[in-house]
Amino acid sequence: QSSITAYGLIDVSAGISKAPGATASVKSVDSGKMTTSYYGFRGVEDLGGGLSATFNLEGFLRADIGASGRSATDNYWARAANVGLSSKEWGTLRIGRNTTTLFVATLSFNPFGDSFGYSPSIRHIFTSNTVTGDSGWSDSVLYTTPNFSGFTGSAFVAAGEGQGGRNVALSGTYAAGPLAGSLVYQKVQKDGGATPVDDTEVTMASGSYDFGAVKLFGQYASAENLTRRIDYKIYEAGASVPLGAGKLLAQFGKISPSTGAARQTWTVGYDYFLSKRTDLYAMAMNDKLSGQSAGRSVSVGMRHRF
Amino acid sequence: QSSITAYGLIDVSAGISKAPGATASVKSVDSGKMTTSYYGFRGVEDLGGGLSATFNLEGFLRADIGASGRSATDNYWARAANVGLSSKEWGTLRIGRNTTTLFVATLSFNPFGDSFGYSPSIRHIFTSNTVTGDSGWSDSVLYTTPNFSGFTGSAFVAAGEGQGGRNVALSGTYAAGPLAGSLVYQKVQKDGGATPVDDTEVTMASGSYDFGAVKLFGQYASAENLTRRIDYKIYEAGASVPLGAGKLLAQFGKISPSTGAARQTWTVGYDYFLSKRTDLYAMAMNDKLSGQSAGRSVSVGMRHRF
Amino acid sequence: QSSITAYGLIDVSAGISKAPGATASVKSVDSGKMTTSYYGFRGVEDLGGGLSATFNLEGFLRADIGASGRSATDNYWARAANVGLSSKEWGTLRIGRNTTTLFVATLSFNPFGDSFGYSPSIRHIFTSNTVTGDSGWSDSVLYTTPNFSGFTGSAFVAAGEGQGGRNVALSGTYAAGPLAGSLVYQKVQKDGGATPVDDTEVTMASGSYDFGAVKLFGQYASAENLTRRIDYKIYEAGASVPLGAGKLLAQFGKISPSTGAARQTWTVGYDYFLSKRTDLYAMAMNDKLSGQSAGRSVSVGMRHRF
Repeated sequence: QSSITAYGLIDVSAGISKAPGATASVKSVDSGKMTTSYYGFRGVEDLGGGLSATFNLEGFLRADIGASGRSATDNYWARAANVGLSSKEWGTLRIGRNTTTLFVATLSFNPFGDSFGYSPSIRHIFTSNTVTGDSGWSDSVLYTTPNFSGFTGSAFVAAGEGQGGRNVALSGTYAAGPLAGSLVYQKVQKDGGATPVDDTEVTMASGSYDFGAVKLFGQYASAENLTRRIDYKIYEAGASVPLGAGKLLAQFGKISPSTGAARQTWTVGYDYFLSKRTDLYAMAMNDKLSGQSAGRSVSVGMRHRF
Repeated sequence: QSSITAYGLIDVSAGISKAPGATASVKSVDSGKMTTSYYGFRGVEDLGGGLSATFNLEGFLRADIGASGRSATDNYWARAANVGLSSKEWGTLRIGRNTTTLFVATLSFNPFGDSFGYSPSIRHIFTSNTVTGDSGWSDSVLYTTPNFSGFTGSAFVAAGEGQGGRNVALSGTYAAGPLAGSLVYQKVQKDGGATPVDDTEVTMASGSYDFGAVKLFGQYASAENLTRRIDYKIYEAGASVPLGAGKLLAQFGKISPSTGAARQTWTVGYDYFLSKRTDLYAMAMNDKLSGQSAGRSVSVGMRHRF
Repeated sequence: QSSITAYGLIDVSAGISKAPGATASVKSVDSGKMTTSYYGFRGVEDLGGGLSATFNLEGFLRADIGASGRSATDNYWARAANVGLSSKEWGTLRIGRNTTTLFVATLSFNPFGDSFGYSPSIRHIFTSNTVTGDSGWSDSVLYTTPNFSGFTGSAFVAAGEGQGGRNVALSGTYAAGPLAGSLVYQKVQKDGGATPVDDTEVTMASGSYDFGAVKLFGQYASAENLTRRIDYKIYEAGASVPLGAGKLLAQFGKISPSTGAARQTWTVGYDYFLSKRTDLYAMAMNDKLSGQSAGRSVSVGMRHRF
């Protein structure tokens, strides 16, 4: 009956950073600059006839200060908490708290993955007030189709529960050989906490091609803040180049809003793999909002998967 | 030395519910409607001579929103946190936070088990202001006798620690073949949190008989709120009928108070087992407090043990 | 890939205690009187060439009430949260939240170990306002040398991150045969929470010698509160005597401050081992601050490692 796998990732780094518009820089030890540190438990039970039951429990953590969650207000199992049924023939259904398909598409099509510290894509879509809603949705049901010759689709709904309306997302992904692409639509209306969040709608197209000597990434998103009537166009282009036991990474991205400050972000870095599970990295970012002095940050860190 | 077993249960459902007296119903995704979701760690060390050392650490969780605890104010390991010694000859002693014997008796003698969403017994004894104190007691010592031809007894004390007085409980259980019965006495005086809880005293008699084609359950409790001088009589009758790969479940229960609104609750449902560890369920409840419109709720859900 | 070891310790006891200066005593069930209860996960990955990657995640818990942390304000993984590289040739580097070398030296050279309930050493150095900073430092980098014929040294820094300045510590330890000794210097400037903590500096020398029939322990610390300009001299002497399947433990310690009340603390106890992993203990302490009635406490408890 011991059907549990424990796993996780801890990412800790030392660095110097200055926020856009700030005058002073701060030296710090940080958690999760490349991948938000987390741990969790998962399991799969074979029910026979190609059907499986699954569960996931995953919590973020701040390894630099020994705290749970991404922040003091985060729920403990905010990364994932769900049960589901999975069938090769019928696809997968998961209910509970699920990672959004927008987040998965964002991290899959940029060279810095799910880095809240250094990925321009993550920064522009998840922490620049362009799109609301978290990277995971509570009270949600996620259906993913089986893989049809490289194509998978998904439908995702989060119950409103009297908190401003439900969230919905639809997405399609193609992956075969060196080519991959994704199209995601998402509408957020649900209010999570004490204060209502703005309603937003976003459509994002992503693609990547792996030439071997270099892998190229591109993303374009059109987001609308329905509450404030602001449009955002988001452009991202990046490359990953295998070099020695690691990879040279680079990306440029920008936000063009209908109202407010534009943002341009450059990141370059080198990710050196000591093993499949452990890497050392050095990253540098320039993050410019129009009308403010540029934000700058550098980090050297270590990431360990277990 | 790796003597730890990890385990748990996640229960997530979708449903529609209207509280007694409310006018609107809410569609929601919920955690723990049939069994409050939890996970934990336990271990047993053989000390020789028939003696064992044991430990338990168990925390509730709200899988629908990825949160720990039954509520935002719950302690992380609120389900259990204790160490103990166990002997076939001398019985078991556990110290720390322990599940109450009243809760174990309540869940053992009704067809819906420990369901805070759908069991009339749990609802009437633990969430209707009839009995105070949680389903687990902090600062407690629990002694359980060995099994004497089907009989076991227990004594349970929670130290007052200057918080209104100590809690005590005494119970006896009989189980042999198709017949089982239980008698529990409990007195609560200890104040857990910021505001004092009412002192209460309860005696509950429970029984069940498994005819094979149907298992019948009955409970009677006499509770007194010593602080407010209110008496409650609680009557519960239920049945579980094996049907296909599942069970048809039904129960009726009521509270007759000396003062205040009487309560009558009906629940029916079907619990379908995909395996020993995974079931799908459909439940419906009618919950009527005199003088108010009836509460109604339906849920379809999935429960997975790991 | 399942490279995780889960482990921990639960310590629960029943006792009577009266704080120094208090008039009434309280009967209580307590967690962590001898060792603060905790659990955690750790792993080591062999990277080849004598190099390893390591991680640690450890959280305290209050088993008496089923809560995480040492207190309601403690971070969940406050005991440890770090990643690192370890080499027999080059030593060990750990980054994240690390246990302080002062805490390790304090617990290693007194018969009651890391007991916040009964060790005079822990009491005088960590809970008597003599030294500030926690037993673990957030945002820290810890380097430990390889073992050179019994000698190891370490350098420890916690980044200030704009919170009052950085913390630093240097220490050397010798252990060979029956003799062991340690010298630790530590300066605390970093402010952890909402209110600034006093800056403090401490130098502590510790030694122990195991004669077989008795093991003797001694500690001397000179601490200065740089913010309030108060000096503290701390003297500790203890002994551990193997007796039957257990050990008789005794210690006396005192604090002589340049300003304020002096403190004298006596502890005696017997620790009986049911196995390597499980012990029962009985402890008594007399804790006297000049000008106040003496604090007194006794506990009988059980400690289980898993």
